Amino acid sequence: MVATYETKTDYKVIGKSPIRHDGLDKVTGRAIYGGDVKVPGLIWGDVLRSPHAHARIKGIDTSAAEAMDGVFAVLTNDDFPQADDKTIDTGEGNVNLRRGQSNVMAFDKVHYKGHVVAAVAAVDRNTAQDAAQAIKVEYEVLTAITDVDAAMADNAPVILEGLVGDHLGENVENTNVARIFRHEFGDVDDAFANSDLVIERTVTMSMVHQGYIEPHNATAIWAQDDNLTVWSSTQGSFGVRSQVAGLLHLPESKIKVNYVEIGGGFGGKTVVYLAPIAALLSRKAGGRPVKLVMDRSSVFEATGPAPGGKIRMKIGVTNGKITAADTDLMLEAGGFPGSAVGAAAICVFACYDFPTSRITGYDVLVNKPKSAAYRAPGSPQASFAIETVIDEICDELGVDKIQFRLDNAAHEGTRRGDGVQFIRVGLEECLAAARDSDHWQSPLGDAPAGKARGRGIASAYWMNGGGKSTCDLMLQDDGTVMMNEGSADIGGTRTSIAMQAAEVLGIPVEDFHVSIPDTDSIGFTGVTGGSRTTYTTGLAAYNAAQKLVVELKSRVADLWETEVSNVEFADGTFTANGDSIGIQELAGKLDPTGGPATSTSSVNLAEAGNAYGVQICDLEIDLATGKTDVIRYTAVQDVGKAVYPQYAEGQIQGGVVQGIGWALNEEYFITDDGTMANKSFLDYRMPTSLDMPMIDTIMVEVPNPLHPYGVRGVGEVPICPPLSAVTQAVKEAIGKPFYELPVKPGRILEAQNGD
Amino acid sequence: MVATYETKTDYKVIGKSPIRHDGLDKVTGRAIYGGDVKVPGLIWGDVLRSPHAHARIKGIDTSAAEAMDGVFAVLTNDDFPQADDKTIDTGEGNVNLRRGQSNVMAFDKVHYKGHVVAAVAAVDRNTAQDAAQAIKVEYEVLTAITDVDAAMADNAPVILEGLVGDHLGENVENTNVARIFRHEFGDVDDAFANSDLVIERTVTMSMVHQGYIEPHNATAIWAQDDNLTVWSSTQGSFGVRSQVAGLLHLPESKIKVNYVEIGGGFGGKTVVYLAPIAALLSRKAGGRPVKLVMDRSSVFEATGPAPGGKIRMKIGVTNGKITAADTDLMLEAGGFPGSAVGAAAICVFACYDFPTSRITGYDVLVNKPKSAAYRAPGSPQASFAIETVIDEICDELGVDKIQFRLDNAAHEGTRRGDGVQFIRVGLEECLAAARDSDHWQSPLGDAPAGKARGRGIASAYWMNGGGKSTCDLMLQDDGTVMMNEGSADIGGTRTSIAMQAAEVLGIPVEDFHVSIPDTDSIGFTGVTGGSRTTYTTGLAAYNAAQKLVVELKSRVADLWETEVSNVEFADGTFTANGDSIGIQELAGKLDPTGGPATSTSSVNLAEAGNAYGVQICDLEIDLATGKTDVIRYTAVQDVGKAVYPQYAEGQIQGGVVQGIGWALNEEYFITDDGTMANKSFLDYRMPTSLDMPMIDTIMVEVPNPLHPYGVRGVGEVPICPPLSAVTQAVKEAIGKPFYELPVKPGRILEAQNGD
Repeated sequence: MVATYETKTDYKVIGKSPIRHDGLDKVTGRAIYGGDVKVPGLIWGDVLRSPHAHARIKGIDTSAAEAMDGVFAVLTNDDFPQADDKTIDTGEGNVNLRRGQSNVMAFDKVHYKGHVVAAVAAVDRNTAQDAAQAIKVEYEVLTAITDVDAAMADNAPVILEGLVGDHLGENVENTNVARIFRHEFGDVDDAFANSDLVIERTVTMSMVHQGYIEPHNATAIWAQDDNLTVWSSTQGSFGVRSQVAGLLHLPESKIKVNYVEIGGGFGGKTVVYLAPIAALLSRKAGGRPVKLVMDRSSVFEATGPAPGGKIRMKIGVTNGKITAADTDLMLEAGGFPGSAVGAAAICVFACYDFPTSRITGYDVLVNKPKSAAYRAPGSPQASFAIETVIDEICDELGVDKIQFRLDNAAHEGTRRGDGVQFIRVGLEECLAAARDSDHWQSPLGDAPAGKARGRGIASAYWMNGGGKSTCDLMLQDDGTVMMNEGSADIGGTRTSIAMQAAEVLGIPVEDFHVSIPDTDSIGFTGVTGGSRTTYTTGLAAYNAAQKLVVELKSRVADLWETEVSNVEFADGTFTANGDSIGIQELAGKLDPTGGPATSTSSVNLAEAGNAYGVQICDLEIDLATGKTDVIRYTAVQDVGKAVYPQYAEGQIQGGVVQGIGWALNEEYFITDDGTMANKSFLDYRMPTSLDMPMIDTIMVEVPNPLHPYGVRGVGEVPICPPLSAVTQAVKEAIGKPFYELPVKPGRILEAQNGD
Repeated sequence: MVATYETKTDYKVIGKSPIRHDGLDKVTGRAIYGGDVKVPGLIWGDVLRSPHAHARIKGIDTSAAEAMDGVFAVLTNDDFPQADDKTIDTGEGNVNLRRGQSNVMAFDKVHYKGHVVAAVAAVDRNTAQDAAQAIKVEYEVLTAITDVDAAMADNAPVILEGLVGDHLGENVENTNVARIFRHEFGDVDDAFANSDLVIERTVTMSMVHQGYIEPHNATAIWAQDDNLTVWSSTQGSFGVRSQVAGLLHLPESKIKVNYVEIGGGFGGKTVVYLAPIAALLSRKAGGRPVKLVMDRSSVFEATGPAPGGKIRMKIGVTNGKITAADTDLMLEAGGFPGSAVGAAAICVFACYDFPTSRITGYDVLVNKPKSAAYRAPGSPQASFAIETVIDEICDELGVDKIQFRLDNAAHEGTRRGDGVQFIRVGLEECLAAARDSDHWQSPLGDAPAGKARGRGIASAYWMNGGGKSTCDLMLQDDGTVMMNEGSADIGGTRTSIAMQAAEVLGIPVEDFHVSIPDTDSIGFTGVTGGSRTTYTTGLAAYNAAQKLVVELKSRVADLWETEVSNVEFADGTFTANGDSIGIQELAGKLDPTGGPATSTSSVNLAEAGNAYGVQICDLEIDLATGKTDVIRYTAVQDVGKAVYPQYAEGQIQGGVVQGIGWALNEEYFITDDGTMANKSFLDYRMPTSLDMPMIDTIMVEVPNPLHPYGVRGVGEVPICPPLSAVTQAVKEAIGKPFYELPVKPGRILEAQNGD
């Protein structure tokens, strides 16, 4: 029972780019981030981290730390409530289990370098740091497993002892593969046997980090009645609440998470690391407020990057049409189960319409930090694999790379690799827009001496999220609207959500005051992630505004002593029997009709708009050094309806830049013993604005039928195409294919010097 | 169009006394009060106050303060936006006018000692204090007017130049009487001429202070886009918002007032003193947050006490029935217009049913702080006047003091002195309960040697308030309820409001989490005052709960695939077609039916329940010293329905103790030059628990037909009867009447030694 909408086309608010509601506070430094939280009696926490990537903990001696002046509490995993839930955890959730607790603080083993082993709370930050370092841990160092091949090798050391893997429905012990699953339609092997052309390649990629500027932080107060108050930089306060509740075995409603602004997340701030530690330290420290803030190297070593891994991809073609595809997706879960391989499987074939497919996903443990979401989790890796093979097919067939994609494009009714059938999607429109773009129609141009140029193109898909969101509206006497909504605002969603209510009400969005309350003060709202916020919370705002109009119609009927059925509302004006009144004028006249007018709406959306992007990359290589420069880049994307075009464009540009970094420079450089050798922003090379050209965007608007304004999520899909678009541009420039990311200068030089 | 209700009688939640939601935070010191507010970059403000009670400001030299290191801003009244509104302000509002601004910071004259003349903001509190004292003010000192007789004398100096008094509809210039008004029914003089007995007395009383423990405070940030954020101890955040908006000529919606806990108010924290100063200082200091906190002497000298004044009271009786009454109520407004004389006029005759009455009210300026609300403002003074005369009538007639009151008691249909006809009220039930009480039925007992005993009785009335309130509810997955409501919680109203929603929902009130959000995050809610909160915001909670039930019925219908009309709800359980599910179990199953269930309700109530109290005081006097000891005290009150009996009882006991202090000890002791001589808690003698016996309470429950649970406000009326009940007990003990409050030892000795 999914509601669909006739799409509105004439907008008064949607499609404009007003000043964002949180703008001034953020540019003047007034906005409160997690690091700014100060409460009376605050003390500091710090943690001790493992120096080994894989080791057994033989003993922990906290006595020296406990004896130090100014130390209020010392914590080990023994202080966590004991989980009695023995459920096999092979999914992406890590709540309510010893295993989840173990990622927050190691139990019997450390699974990655930087894994937290113990924590302390002390009178100030320096004392806490000194005390944490005074804790003595005896380790039995084990062999570190740093890639999926080593993890899946016979007789590989088992990282997570006791894990029972689910391998295509079969329980398997003593394995590093937490889960193997399959989506299969038709007889793939038969289809390959009958195809004109079959190409099979295997690609690999490293872990990469979201690289948000603000490190993780948490402040907690565990009160004497076991009510817990938390402040923590997060993409969703309710997510912190449910995770902390699970990990600490507390009822969710005993926990209040206060909203603080977030300095970047990109998926990485959907997981709790410090909040449960701060909470338990506060309890041990007699209810004192405890604050922890990570340093940068800990963010790299011990929070969740996107998984690296290996993908085998085999595609068959006959007469220019894809006949079949088969893939093995082997993604690094990190030190505990739960990579994005499930989402990768949903996305991997989603750009193409073909009858026969097999997807096998592997969730593989390695001695690296437990992976987390990063912008369209799993899809960039999957897109890199399939687009690399599609590009070679086009080369082999000598066909236009856009025309081939158009001939094989997914559309309404296409079955996705996991079996879901598409509603109305906009891939064909994106491909057509890319084909017709000035970029695609313009020649690449000659490279200067000593340099080479290439052009790549790639497409990708992200399904977007729905889920639960709440929005409350209050019309004020002076005609302004107070809006409460539950979504953390990372990219300007206060405004993009308010605009949707403003459109309904006919009130300028500048007259909205938007609050993001704590978890006690707004209905449940899911995490800001999955490109769900402007779509889902926006729909809650739309519904709340519609309800407010219904309420106001009855007030107008009261005022004018007429039947409510006589009252009409359009363009911000109520009319009945020849009278009319503007909504903002009406706002000041509500007192005799029952006081303030308020409304609330919650939604739980099972489906969302599907997002497609097609991107074109022109790149130049310095042949002597292997240095790459992206010289022109165009991102085409179906945004459904750009609520706030500047932000939608910004999301696309930001995603592209992160994808380019992933393609060309970024990687967890892991030594044989499992050490990340580049755990600083100096050595972990993220592109800056100086490295990038202007990213041109072409926003295609194919309305999402699930939203009254046709909104689709825009934030994630743009990071997916660059991995292949950039790599194929390098291939075209130097005539050698690349199957390993990043395509860094050393690899380019090696390829040039190879056969 | 006022809704009336059949009163419910079988309660599951109402009438219990659970642990209050804010209890732990308050007893452990975790609750955040205005004084606890810390924000990054905070600087301190301080003010310079007038040393004179009445003076013309000839000049202000701020140069020395401005030149001091660490001073960011210096403020005088010239910095306030210029009001262009010349409206004659004779009412109780002081918003949006130069006159309102002048009470916050003196313009051309100072009207009372302690009147703010200038303010500074500086890097720390000491610097701010030093800088404020460095401001030089040149005064022309004028004669201070310290009582209503002096104020109304011919050729009295005019305090508020330019004031045009409204004297029974006539405009009068050069006067200290801002307003004279009259309510008159029948021919009073004729009725007195035909009465068997007529007694006329004049009583006087001093200003008294609410004596809340927490001093006034305010912190403000004036951002560069002219959005203003305020924290301030207050009985109502929206009241702060509207007053600051008026005084500073800002749109209300540009101001966000954050809720902080309040350390006592009793009516005195309904007026802003520091918030506008903090705001303007912040603006002048480039947007830095500025905080001000008063010291105790400033609280006494320059915030709003209850008015003193003089009341002439004349009553006629024939055959034991009151025939007529006539009163002149002359109350001290203080330095600016607006005493509680209007409310005094409403209350003065409200305990009695008689045909002919005249009330003349005088709002009189004197050189004392502008008076403010104090628990049933105006009614204690009025009650003292009428009950003094009623007591003498009973003595004269030799009739039982309760029987006389019963014979003349107001009831449903009685016309109040201002013309309003009563709905169902409970005075007769209170009088009967007092008569039947163990206290009234027990003898006073003999006094020990050197002491004398007396018993007094008095009744009183308060009309209670309605107005606007908002409540939002959210049902959580785990069956708990998150509640947002807009009323400042002074006496446990978080709980008394939540209990009303809990009663509807059949969910334990312990499973409610109650938040009081900022003014951007909850619909308009009036001040916690006028005994309105449990009644009005409680009704909003009741309505929101009813709406939540409607929403949940549709969810149940969804889940069970039945028509919503088949779904019934009773005692926390939904039933349909033989199936049933408890509301808390249902809470965990809502996801497929549309996500979180939320509701919101706003009310605007024109009427409220009327409150009556009857109190009996036994008192013992040390004849040698005049020292008084209350030895037994019983307070009878119609509470409508005691939602939370412990709190209702506590409100009654607290009110009684404040009334006893008013009767026996408390007063603004003002010297001839207008100086308050006792501006500390050491010299201003408020009763403590050591001074008081247990105050026995008898709660009578005559349901208020305007509320589904029959709730009446309980917080104010209990302060009214003690002024007369205590005084008549003294009269009975030593055989001398008292017409002047407080009845302090010196006066008792003087009365004994007089003729």
